[in-house]
Amino acid sequence: MIAPGFTGGTLDRADRLRQDPDAFAAAATDWRARLLVLNDGQPEVDAEGRLGWTSLADLDEAAELILLGLDDDRPRFAAYLPGTRMPPNRGPGLLSALASLQPGEAATYAAARSVIDWHSRHNFCANCGAQTALYRAGWGRRCHACSTEHFPRVDPVVIMIAEHDGRALLGRQPAFPPGRYSALAGFLEPGESVEEAVARELHEEAGVRVSGVRYVASQPWPFPSSLMIACIGYAEDDTITLDTHELEDAIWVSREVVRDVLAGGQGPFLPPPPYAIAFTLLTEWAKG
Amino acid sequence: MIAPGFTGGTLDRADRLRQDPDAFAAAATDWRARLLVLNDGQPEVDAEGRLGWTSLADLDEAAELILLGLDDDRPRFAAYLPGTRMPPNRGPGLLSALASLQPGEAATYAAARSVIDWHSRHNFCANCGAQTALYRAGWGRRCHACSTEHFPRVDPVVIMIAEHDGRALLGRQPAFPPGRYSALAGFLEPGESVEEAVARELHEEAGVRVSGVRYVASQPWPFPSSLMIACIGYAEDDTITLDTHELEDAIWVSREVVRDVLAGGQGPFLPPPPYAIAFTLLTEWAKG
Repeated sequence: MIAPGFTGGTLDRADRLRQDPDAFAAAATDWRARLLVLNDGQPEVDAEGRLGWTSLADLDEAAELILLGLDDDRPRFAAYLPGTRMPPNRGPGLLSALASLQPGEAATYAAARSVIDWHSRHNFCANCGAQTALYRAGWGRRCHACSTEHFPRVDPVVIMIAEHDGRALLGRQPAFPPGRYSALAGFLEPGESVEEAVARELHEEAGVRVSGVRYVASQPWPFPSSLMIACIGYAEDDTITLDTHELEDAIWVSREVVRDVLAGGQGPFLPPPPYAIAFTLLTEWAKG
Repeated sequence: MIAPGFTGGTLDRADRLRQDPDAFAAAATDWRARLLVLNDGQPEVDAEGRLGWTSLADLDEAAELILLGLDDDRPRFAAYLPGTRMPPNRGPGLLSALASLQPGEAATYAAARSVIDWHSRHNFCANCGAQTALYRAGWGRRCHACSTEHFPRVDPVVIMIAEHDGRALLGRQPAFPPGRYSALAGFLEPGESVEEAVARELHEEAGVRVSGVRYVASQPWPFPSSLMIACIGYAEDDTITLDTHELEDAIWVSREVVRDVLAGGQGPFLPPPPYAIAFTLLTEWAKG
């Protein structure tokens, strides 16, 4: 199987350093330590598809450090500047950076981006409303008033193909670029398994009932903090009943058509980008 | 495969009703509507392993309704009483209720318990600190001040067996009942795939490196709101380096021993309860 985008990172997350203030201080004053370069949430990418790093000497005085981990035994950090926000959208500059990053480098970027974004939206305690402060080397926030601990959120999302008679169901969200179709997707809810969420979403969005759901692959997706869980299920029939609040259109496409389109050929739809797990999922399905 | 605990629920979550105030009002005044009975977070269980329900006439005047969904075309609700908390621990009464509930009924309980607990810990906006109010039929909260929308949190947790030379790695947390061993587990972090989180946790907790990680099954776990993702990986060798902050002990056990123990026989450990996905995972692994 081709590795999904945003996977294959080489960072040792070094959980032991997060909880040891002395070890953290030593890492943060290590002259070899590196700081991830982000410009308004966007990474620098070199000609080999690697992330840009700088020295901690470049750190904004008001910034707080997040220990991403160790790589080549070097501490690697990202900076969170209180009061700032990640830009919510994915502009053309970022999409082009994602397309040129090596997947393992994109994994480091994904971790940094999700955690920074989480800090920016969690300055207050959901339990009591008081202010929270960064702790655990950036992998948590603690409330000043009630001491509740908060940890970065990861939202599981199911993304799936329904298969019927050798054809796959693809859908089109209104916000997609022109011509793009992809696997259907939705947030998993409390009280559901992965397989149940897949069946519910396909029924809600397309009126399609599936059974025999099987897991294919997963990837982190840092917009802002999803865990994408890719699956395939078998549809009882091919009647589509569209939920037009969610989807603009849905179509059944054959393996041959999917293979052609993924290989760059002309077809009835434009495929998802290679760094999206929908690309991995379609590639696996097209193999048969 | 045996179905994991807390799966197989028959509730239609009826997402369309959550977002339609008129449809919600009609459901909440339907004379056939049912309210889940919870006593301090604990369900009533009848002799057939089914949940206890009552009428909405029994609703506390200060309580807010959560629409669990439709079953037999009847609206099904749970009640959240502002200012109350789910008891954090799992006492013997609750454990015995879980052991006697049918899995599909336990799924309904899991959804209700996780969402109620989430409301109780999210009365304030993490973004600005102002008060939030329940909306979307209980499947969200919105901030009075900044209008940020918050949705019930689901935390993905990986739970896994490392396999080496026909034996499985099991660990013992200090909080386990005497003699209990189970699969190792840990929260998935931002920027990780399922497979990467499995490899990281096994290395952090037991010093074991794995490859070829494969997904087995998933279940919701409502203490308070985990999605358990069960996997198996292949260990390079059987040397254990224990993280004693996480585990008290870890052992390698053969398929034969696991089969015996799951069948109720004597062995070197007590197995996890049948409603835990570790039980499903061990059962699958023991099949070979």
